[in-house]
Amino acid sequence: MKMLLMICDGMGDRAIPEFGNKTPLQKADTPNMDWLADKGMCGLMDAIAPGVIPGSDTAHLALLGYDPAEVYSGRGPFEAAGLDMELREGDVALRCNFATIQDGIITDRRAGRIKNPRALEECLDGMEIDGVKIIFKAAVEHRAVLILRGEGLSSSITDVDPHKPGSEPWVCKPVMPEGEKTAAVVNHFVKKSEKILGEHPLNKERENKGLLPANIVLPRGAGYMIPLTSLQDRYKITSSAIAGIGLVKGVCRLAGMDVPEVDGVTGGLDTNLDAKMNAVKDALKTHDFVLSNIKMPDIYGHDGDAAGKVNGIEKLDEALAPLKELIEEDVIIALTADHSTPVPVMNHSADPVPLLIAGKHVRRDEVVHFDEISVARGCIGRIKGMDLLPIMLDLANRSEKYGA
Amino acid sequence: MKMLLMICDGMGDRAIPEFGNKTPLQKADTPNMDWLADKGMCGLMDAIAPGVIPGSDTAHLALLGYDPAEVYSGRGPFEAAGLDMELREGDVALRCNFATIQDGIITDRRAGRIKNPRALEECLDGMEIDGVKIIFKAAVEHRAVLILRGEGLSSSITDVDPHKPGSEPWVCKPVMPEGEKTAAVVNHFVKKSEKILGEHPLNKERENKGLLPANIVLPRGAGYMIPLTSLQDRYKITSSAIAGIGLVKGVCRLAGMDVPEVDGVTGGLDTNLDAKMNAVKDALKTHDFVLSNIKMPDIYGHDGDAAGKVNGIEKLDEALAPLKELIEEDVIIALTADHSTPVPVMNHSADPVPLLIAGKHVRRDEVVHFDEISVARGCIGRIKGMDLLPIMLDLANRSEKYGA
Repeated sequence: MKMLLMICDGMGDRAIPEFGNKTPLQKADTPNMDWLADKGMCGLMDAIAPGVIPGSDTAHLALLGYDPAEVYSGRGPFEAAGLDMELREGDVALRCNFATIQDGIITDRRAGRIKNPRALEECLDGMEIDGVKIIFKAAVEHRAVLILRGEGLSSSITDVDPHKPGSEPWVCKPVMPEGEKTAAVVNHFVKKSEKILGEHPLNKERENKGLLPANIVLPRGAGYMIPLTSLQDRYKITSSAIAGIGLVKGVCRLAGMDVPEVDGVTGGLDTNLDAKMNAVKDALKTHDFVLSNIKMPDIYGHDGDAAGKVNGIEKLDEALAPLKELIEEDVIIALTADHSTPVPVMNHSADPVPLLIAGKHVRRDEVVHFDEISVARGCIGRIKGMDLLPIMLDLANRSEKYGA
Repeated sequence: MKMLLMICDGMGDRAIPEFGNKTPLQKADTPNMDWLADKGMCGLMDAIAPGVIPGSDTAHLALLGYDPAEVYSGRGPFEAAGLDMELREGDVALRCNFATIQDGIITDRRAGRIKNPRALEECLDGMEIDGVKIIFKAAVEHRAVLILRGEGLSSSITDVDPHKPGSEPWVCKPVMPEGEKTAAVVNHFVKKSEKILGEHPLNKERENKGLLPANIVLPRGAGYMIPLTSLQDRYKITSSAIAGIGLVKGVCRLAGMDVPEVDGVTGGLDTNLDAKMNAVKDALKTHDFVLSNIKMPDIYGHDGDAAGKVNGIEKLDEALAPLKELIEEDVIIALTADHSTPVPVMNHSADPVPLLIAGKHVRRDEVVHFDEISVARGCIGRIKGMDLLPIMLDLANRSEKYGA
């Protein structure tokens, strides 16, 4: 039996007074999710643990059965893998922004959301600082990734990105003595980026056009590359992930999953949900386990847009119609979120997410509405993210007995 | 957002046949608790873990986010902190009773509940035994605390208090080899207490009046002083506790909380609940997090008084009326118990306790009665005590993301 894990990113929420204290998911009309709830069992899930706010990276790791406490030291390596950059054990990787600095102050952390920073990549990639190799790659818009490769590197360092405009870049500092060398290399790299990018013709051109120059690189989220045992090796399954956002793709790549690029799948509000669902169906033909992440609800949560989130969830529900056929084809389907992104919080929260698991012979409870409140009366109870894949493997009759 | 944790000590119970198998909390009329249940979410909580009977000390530690397995070796240090005694790392502290011994047999473990044992404190405090400093302080009635300060002390020792009258004092024994010295010091202290108190004029006076002499000290509950990381350092919150009983005050003091003495708050049935609620409201003005413990339901449980417990819970519910205003003021309120003290058990039990969390934007389930049965259908599910404070911090938007 095949397995599909559909992750509606950030879908969980809190009580919205304007909705009579319902959550956006309670408020939304979701006939397909409700149909699936009716065909299986429901419950609540803490991606990490009760009261712990999950990141997208730590949550997806847990949902793939990895303990973030063992394999996660920062987002960098997962961002790098999302760009399909090669990583080696001992590398330290950092997420970066191209930003605008004027008179020593960061005036825009995204350099006016510069559209094509690839030209700026070459002048920074490949240099060496204190014997450490600098591998630098630009991604979409202002985003980039920095990999440091060399001896004695550590992710125990602070961010350079000040997280808000209006201040100087932070100086990278070691949080443990072993981070001293790495912090020095990062600070050196930032200085160099300011010098090299400041003189770059593309930035002169941008300034002439009245656009903000991308004249500094701000690293953050340093992570040490800890190799993951692949899902194939852990669970004897072939697996694929259909996702738009780099961080999720990166987690899945490092778990050894096939992560195809799918036309029209962007991770933004403009993503083509039908193309995504077709890619999911295709991936299920050739893989035992498919994970799909739909970013949309998270975006409305971050924007604090309650009505948009309801509307977005309803569109998402429409796109999930093909899941009904998959149930007929004996696929075990889990539908859930990686974390809540409540509209009143405008960021991730630790509120547990709703979970349903449907499929042939899966126990059926009385829950017929898929939302944060109704699922709590289902027959799954409240589980942790790391429990989900083992439960799916068992329901697909792919687990081995512990004992005799 | 501020946070309030109301602990109705020992409120959980079991089915009482005379109540048609309802629990005292089910039987009681509790409009204020029910109002709060309606304004938030409910569930069950195991203070420590399913099937583990919590003490008041271990339960309160867990509810403050500490793992008792890491920080708890015995009640002694918490009793000492409850009396505001200074503790140092490496100290071993013991709870003590003044008791009556006659012809080598303990005839009353509480020396006739002697009213004012302070006069007996001085003659024992400050001595030295085998290079170990003896710090001794009397508390309310027959209660006292002994701190041992010196090199090589251990809490791996047995009690001297035989827990029931009619037998000799137990000889303190090491349960691990490293407890040998400490056990010898304790036995020596008990012998000295018998000699010194036996000759004390206060006891002669008591005997003349026909009262039982307090002519021996019986230590028990040895605990090693393990410093706790304060709530301020762990969670960046200021905090205060309004409680009557010493053990709870001690736990809160060692967690770095402000623990004011409040007039009329005794920890007994005579406590002034209105004074307590006023102190809670005042504390919330100056602190991020307030814990309040109301001992009353526990006392009725220990007494095996079902009707008294119902009546007591109804009085407690009346006193909780001010919580309704606090909800309007954006306080996140958790209402629960530290453990069950079922009437048929007349002691603590491991039955999980009911829990509600209410506040603006807190998810709202369909539970409208706050009792052990109704809450199980709520959208919290069943959590552990250590999860509660992280959940409250998240709901108050005071947590940090784990990951990106």
